[in-house]
Amino acid sequence: MENVTVLGAGSWGTALAIVLAENGHNTLVWTHREDQAEEINEQRTNNRYLPDIKLPNLLVATSNLEEAVHHSKTIVVAVPTKAIREVCEKMMSFLDKKILFVHVSKGIEPDSLLRISEILEQSLSPDVIEDIVVLSGPSHAEEVVQGHPTTITAACENLKAAEKVQDLFMNGYFRVYTNNDVVGVELGGALKNVIALAAGISDGLNYGDNAKAALITRGLAEISRLGVKMGGNPFTFSGLTGMGDLIVTCTSVHSRNWRAGNMLGKGLKLDEVLEQMGMVVEGVRTTKAAYQLSEKYDVPMPITTELYNVLFNHKEPKVAVDELMIRMKKREIDNLL
Amino acid sequence: MENVTVLGAGSWGTALAIVLAENGHNTLVWTHREDQAEEINEQRTNNRYLPDIKLPNLLVATSNLEEAVHHSKTIVVAVPTKAIREVCEKMMSFLDKKILFVHVSKGIEPDSLLRISEILEQSLSPDVIEDIVVLSGPSHAEEVVQGHPTTITAACENLKAAEKVQDLFMNGYFRVYTNNDVVGVELGGALKNVIALAAGISDGLNYGDNAKAALITRGLAEISRLGVKMGGNPFTFSGLTGMGDLIVTCTSVHSRNWRAGNMLGKGLKLDEVLEQMGMVVEGVRTTKAAYQLSEKYDVPMPITTELYNVLFNHKEPKVAVDELMIRMKKREIDNLL
Repeated sequence: MENVTVLGAGSWGTALAIVLAENGHNTLVWTHREDQAEEINEQRTNNRYLPDIKLPNLLVATSNLEEAVHHSKTIVVAVPTKAIREVCEKMMSFLDKKILFVHVSKGIEPDSLLRISEILEQSLSPDVIEDIVVLSGPSHAEEVVQGHPTTITAACENLKAAEKVQDLFMNGYFRVYTNNDVVGVELGGALKNVIALAAGISDGLNYGDNAKAALITRGLAEISRLGVKMGGNPFTFSGLTGMGDLIVTCTSVHSRNWRAGNMLGKGLKLDEVLEQMGMVVEGVRTTKAAYQLSEKYDVPMPITTELYNVLFNHKEPKVAVDELMIRMKKREIDNLL
Repeated sequence: MENVTVLGAGSWGTALAIVLAENGHNTLVWTHREDQAEEINEQRTNNRYLPDIKLPNLLVATSNLEEAVHHSKTIVVAVPTKAIREVCEKMMSFLDKKILFVHVSKGIEPDSLLRISEILEQSLSPDVIEDIVVLSGPSHAEEVVQGHPTTITAACENLKAAEKVQDLFMNGYFRVYTNNDVVGVELGGALKNVIALAAGISDGLNYGDNAKAALITRGLAEISRLGVKMGGNPFTFSGLTGMGDLIVTCTSVHSRNWRAGNMLGKGLKLDEVLEQMGMVVEGVRTTKAAYQLSEKYDVPMPITTELYNVLFNHKEPKVAVDELMIRMKKREIDNLL
């Protein structure tokens, strides 16, 4: 059994910490909110993010980042994408050995167009990085904490590091597979949020399951087109972290990107949606980044482009979806290539 | 505007006839039930299959197969897979010219292992077949008749014939694409019903969206593996008739294969399920055929195999799904290849 640190006590960070603690690891969760750390340690709950879940005894929280960093040689980074740079910067003053980093965030930074592992590499000095592993797949926290069967992928160019992460997390209901295609896994996880927003819009317009299935299918095609051009393995996009995560995000009531899109489809404006959600909607930032990537790599991404126009250029959602349905090419395979 | 015949007045046959009539074609629907033809012609409804839908004026019904066959040079075959041979045999005595056949059925015949277009070729003499086009994709009848946006594929080795079918059906809400990969389109449409049964079982066991997304993802992988070995184009399986139709069938409340699987997951026996459904559950026969195909072509199809054991060898659904979750290989890409 090992010591493991989890940075971030949102729903996903906490769910992963529960899995680790149930596997017998001494798991220390860091949150910047002292009251949340107290609730976790004293009430054994994290009610804002995982209501009605009793936390296992091996899961302990702290609001002291130095303590969290010194607790272990494995740090799971589960803070929102936007906060990663800041947390890394603070961590740097405490890090004095090589760490195996595991990140579970899904996004691409607009303008810099960096993936999460690249942001970590840029924000942390090489002499504190043992390896960076991305853990990604179709995995709603709400289901993991109820012990529902979940499959997920640990990816690292160094497969040994991915296998180490597999060993830490694997149990009867949480099945971890390995992959060495970090680019493909990170892009699939990030870009599915763009398609989930579009699927939510379609549902908000009451366009039904036929239309949504078409959007998801075309969505994966454009993700794969870009991903392969950026160096990802085409098989990764057909796998758990591509198609699997895309399906769950576009069809599950738990998905906040789908919910945000749904409100847009029902006629709310973006700022109203973000206010009502009260949580980070990663897909909004990622849409901007994905649009920039499609321009940079010269890859046609019609769904991403229409969504970009809805979010940032005041295009009517109905007009955008109708145009997507109508303007597709006449031969299906031409359109997928 | 043209004369078009539709054989079969179930929900999908009727929905397609509505699309044709709305496009201005004189559409004659054949049903073997005289009372149903009367209801369609006199009440302008087909309430058993499409409740509360008013039929357009250009849609007329008959229970006289000879009249139906002589009405047009384009015949849409929309009878249950099991009835196709019998209907073709009866048709043969009336056919006196070359006909463009369009079929919309999804299945594979057990034992013979023939696809639908092959059954048509075998049951009809070559001098009455102009071409056979398969029309397939993510398209619940209930949504099409409400004018919800739907995309679908018309496939024929002779692309001109597929384009002719595209022209007949295409309109603002019903978008038809063409493809020349008949093998891939027919296999995708048939085999998705196997995975839908498995997804229904997982949902019936309350295993949640994470598990279902994994099943769908692995399901498409095994469909593609078999399909490519049988001569299908890998891109077809990533398209509307593969992934698209699979998603809609596994996640929509309209899918009867999913509903049947759901009842199995909740503990009902197969004969109880079939009795309660009161409609054809195509996936049950297709599972047998798919299992036979996996043996014949020596392609590992773990989901199909487990489902075959549940349906025909009294295996407990929970044991089958648990084994699927646990026994997958450790490296994700190995598993997809």
